[in-house]
Amino acid sequence: MEVLRELSVKNDKKIVFFVLDGLGGLPFEKGGKTELETASTPNLDALAAESECGLHNPLGMGITPGSAPGHLSLFGYNPIDYAVGRGVVAAMGIAFPMKAGDVAARMNFASQDEKGNITDRRAGRIPTDKCAQLCEMLKGVSIAGIEAFVKPVKDYRAVVIFRGSDLSDHVSDTDPQNTGVKPLDPRATSEKGEKTAGVAKEFIRQANAILKGQKPANAVLMRGFAELPYIPSMRELYHLTPLALAVYPDYKGISRLVGMDVIEGLSNFEEQGKALRDSWNRYDFFFIHHKYTDSKGEDGDFDGKVAEIEKADAFLPQILGLKPDVIIVTGDHSTPALCKAHSGHPVPFLINARESRPDGVKEFGESGCSRGMWGGVIKGTQLISLALAYSGKLKKFGA
Amino acid sequence: MEVLRELSVKNDKKIVFFVLDGLGGLPFEKGGKTELETASTPNLDALAAESECGLHNPLGMGITPGSAPGHLSLFGYNPIDYAVGRGVVAAMGIAFPMKAGDVAARMNFASQDEKGNITDRRAGRIPTDKCAQLCEMLKGVSIAGIEAFVKPVKDYRAVVIFRGSDLSDHVSDTDPQNTGVKPLDPRATSEKGEKTAGVAKEFIRQANAILKGQKPANAVLMRGFAELPYIPSMRELYHLTPLALAVYPDYKGISRLVGMDVIEGLSNFEEQGKALRDSWNRYDFFFIHHKYTDSKGEDGDFDGKVAEIEKADAFLPQILGLKPDVIIVTGDHSTPALCKAHSGHPVPFLINARESRPDGVKEFGESGCSRGMWGGVIKGTQLISLALAYSGKLKKFGA
Repeated sequence: MEVLRELSVKNDKKIVFFVLDGLGGLPFEKGGKTELETASTPNLDALAAESECGLHNPLGMGITPGSAPGHLSLFGYNPIDYAVGRGVVAAMGIAFPMKAGDVAARMNFASQDEKGNITDRRAGRIPTDKCAQLCEMLKGVSIAGIEAFVKPVKDYRAVVIFRGSDLSDHVSDTDPQNTGVKPLDPRATSEKGEKTAGVAKEFIRQANAILKGQKPANAVLMRGFAELPYIPSMRELYHLTPLALAVYPDYKGISRLVGMDVIEGLSNFEEQGKALRDSWNRYDFFFIHHKYTDSKGEDGDFDGKVAEIEKADAFLPQILGLKPDVIIVTGDHSTPALCKAHSGHPVPFLINARESRPDGVKEFGESGCSRGMWGGVIKGTQLISLALAYSGKLKKFGA
Repeated sequence: MEVLRELSVKNDKKIVFFVLDGLGGLPFEKGGKTELETASTPNLDALAAESECGLHNPLGMGITPGSAPGHLSLFGYNPIDYAVGRGVVAAMGIAFPMKAGDVAARMNFASQDEKGNITDRRAGRIPTDKCAQLCEMLKGVSIAGIEAFVKPVKDYRAVVIFRGSDLSDHVSDTDPQNTGVKPLDPRATSEKGEKTAGVAKEFIRQANAILKGQKPANAVLMRGFAELPYIPSMRELYHLTPLALAVYPDYKGISRLVGMDVIEGLSNFEEQGKALRDSWNRYDFFFIHHKYTDSKGEDGDFDGKVAEIEKADAFLPQILGLKPDVIIVTGDHSTPALCKAHSGHPVPFLINARESRPDGVKEFGESGCSRGMWGGVIKGTQLISLALAYSGKLKKFGA
């Protein structure tokens, strides 16, 4: 990374990372085809035939990444060096201006019965405007020496940011990840976390008192306590002027963390395409994110994932029409429908540029990519380096 | 490794590492086939067709590993960080309870002439019971402040463990690795080793006096002075309950070093298979070791190595019959008959699991594996990570 910082230079070449979340898959039956191989993808296949193909590991071999580390890896940050907690991703996702020393946590509105047992961890998936009303009510919480910001995210999801002296993210989750049981108490995971655990406990006590009698959301669950980490920006590291075109808050959050500008209010490919064209002249790095390949994989919906890949394929010409100098199409991790979850399998990618060297792969799929030029499985963090190189943004190393 | 320690979880899935020692080979003639490619291996080929295939480097590119580093790498330990001396491997191989501060050395019984020149470094390969008698005689050695344990290993091989204060393994070998010359004196390789070099010299003086007149073993040679290293166990690191099914003492020693249970008294595949079935329910990691692929390679016996690979192929169904959740078949290094020695060539492997992604390789061999999904040559230490991942033993990293 330090080498890239030294070698990278500004020019007018455009790089696009088109990320289909959870792209990598598995066949349902041995010897069968993966989701990507099953999908009809004439545009991706034509592009692959002129590209270099391969597989990448976002993290170590076989290690399953969460969304944040998967994307950090794509942007060239070793996720083990740059740990980002869920609370921070949520806060950045709604563009909350976190400061050093703040501690953020993801909060769910939930339902509990008279005994205090959780009956629904998502309070019947209340809509975002209801969530916003409840967050407004929680402004009534008052803790000496602490500012508590409570903000809606999406549906039943909210985020709390504590501001005050000596706070720490060494605090455990209160979400029991199950129903029929009481929420857990927030506990300090080291001495440093004791004050914050106390603050969180008092916050929850007051919040639940305020929510008493509300239906269905009469409790809060917290997880992913996190401080703002130091992450050098993509501008600083690679001299890029990066823009994110994402629909979901978490991906906007990760983008902001690495210093991207973020366009708000996008909800589908059509809007992402228009925003891309409108901003084409003002940026040189574009991160276009498609969420639903991952969602369908998580649902175990093989055919649904195939359909989402086909939608992405149909969108591809809108990107290519702008003639990017470098385009990478890949995922942040695998989410095989077979697994109904993120997995540690390597992720197919293609990189196309004037200077890429076609490698004989004619179809964009896991098997094809494994025989591609980069097919021996490279590290996810190495992609940014290829992108910079093929866009002429890397100087020579040494004399 | 620290990441694996944090992410790995206990479950009931079974992992088998079937290790054919020195598996990797070379063709005798350019364009010909390797030992593995020459062998008729219908079972391995059928398994490969449903597996992910590749090549791994136990150490760095082209670096030839000894047996201990080759196996440590397979078990996920970087052999450069975890150096294990021959003396320790020998002591662990006979389950001698070494303590911190002890120094162990491999000892050969040898033959010398009247002038003290070595005539046979292995004393005509005396049998193990003769070796045990001689070890018993050497209990007569007495050195002030030092306990010296002398234990038979196999044939002419024994091990000596010195116990006392301020001992160190900074001592050079006495085996001249040649006949017609005198044994070398043990010398300190740093100041720390001076006391131990003196102890070893006195031990050898008294031992040779006791053995005077014996035939053919009238001398001792020592090598591989080693202290017990700190090695975290596979239980601690990966939350596995591992078992070793090995015939040869050294491999039992390496297994004990990483905290495996070891079944004693096995001498062939038939006994290994029975022990595997008998212990199947009590463990979740099985290391099955086959020595003779390496032995035949060391002898330069191409056809002999082919035959040993075919025996391993015939044994494979006994493992598969137990339906392991993950099976890896590989070697700890290459021992091409062409080289008559260990070599630094990458080693073919296959990994099969419900969630492995078939890669089009239909035959288990060096060429096929180089075109497999992991064909770009991975690090040997990464295999354990894949095995844990494909058996559902790794949690997700990050939010």
